[in-house]
Amino acid sequence: MGFKTTELSITTGSRSGLFDLTAACERFVAGEGDGLLNVFVPHATCGLVIMELGAGSDVDLLRALEAVLPRDDRWTHRHGSPGHGADHVVPAFVPPSITVPVVEGRLALGTWQSIALVDTNVDNQRRTVRLTLVGGAIG
Amino acid sequence: MGFKTTELSITTGSRSGLFDLTAACERFVAGEGDGLLNVFVPHATCGLVIMELGAGSDVDLLRALEAVLPRDDRWTHRHGSPGHGADHVVPAFVPPSITVPVVEGRLALGTWQSIALVDTNVDNQRRTVRLTLVGGAIG
Amino acid sequence: MGFKTTELSITTGSRSGLFDLTAACERFVAGEGDGLLNVFVPHATCGLVIMELGAGSDVDLLRALEAVLPRDDRWTHRHGSPGHGADHVVPAFVPPSITVPVVEGRLALGTWQSIALVDTNVDNQRRTVRLTLVGGAIG
Repeated sequence: MGFKTTELSITTGSRSGLFDLTAACERFVAGEGDGLLNVFVPHATCGLVIMELGAGSDVDLLRALEAVLPRDDRWTHRHGSPGHGADHVVPAFVPPSITVPVVEGRLALGTWQSIALVDTNVDNQRRTVRLTLVGGAIG
Repeated sequence: MGFKTTELSITTGSRSGLFDLTAACERFVAGEGDGLLNVFVPHATCGLVIMELGAGSDVDLLRALEAVLPRDDRWTHRHGSPGHGADHVVPAFVPPSITVPVVEGRLALGTWQSIALVDTNVDNQRRTVRLTLVGGAIG
Repeated sequence: MGFKTTELSITTGSRSGLFDLTAACERFVAGEGDGLLNVFVPHATCGLVIMELGAGSDVDLLRALEAVLPRDDRWTHRHGSPGHGADHVVPAFVPPSITVPVVEGRLALGTWQSIALVDTNVDNQRRTVRLTLVGGAIG
């Protein structure tokens, strides 16, 4: 069986936001036949989504997360900047692992779907993302 | 390694709701030995759940999503019918990809678990779902 | 292709909480080379998370779930103890399946990440968790 894994380094800077991983994922699976791509972020305050980007939903998601997990003083976890406890609950609602089918070396995404890193934590400037392909035509 | 993929076409009509995919998934993996089944919906306003169906929780989920993501005018994404911006945030909370272990050609679901498509978007009448099996005894 | 699966039995007792599965997952993949580990809980009122444990975020998650899914009389699902309908919506927000890359027999988790069962249902004393590895160097 084929297996392939790599790590990406993403510069997220000091803002909260979504970071599009789709092109990097497409490059990773290109020419690799059929399989499953797992995208995984090894950080405790990030998540991964598959959604439409660039038409306002990025901002809408960040606001919805802020409404569900307000950055106030309610959090037991008190390390870091004020409200940072909220960041640590994000991965329960927006998991750090997502799997996408790969067919003939292409992601089987829909027209309006992109894969994105969600990072609400403004204290980390760089993030790692691991791409792993388990598949048929590789290796 | 074995690999098998197919697309289902689901008629969701003009109502928001949950659509049971369990029987179709069972048929897809029957006789295929051991592996992982990935269920994936290539639409930007759908999600997939594994939960009990038919005892009221379907309605409860739709109401909980409505409470978390109200269909009002708060959304930056403004295409489609009023409140449609909410639909575009659904996949961040209810992801469009879920993976189920397959053991000896059967889904390793619990007694009360079903696999369902969640579609809050009333503007689309038909949806596609991709089933993908990566496994040991196939191919 | 390699395939390996097992079931764990977890004593959750009569409290709601998070139950750390990381050590059991590490043992399961040790020496097994590269692959994908799927963790799956075959119960309709549980979820799985990858997050930091032991610094307060466990409690924060349970409170956040309680805020999103209050244990009051709003639920259509009316079996079990009062508010139990909320438990049945938990798996839509905190899915019962999560996949983790395995590299050279080790989970590719980040420093602060643990894998945990989330069980808000106080009526069940024991839970099953299925670990499944699909991988390269096994079998």
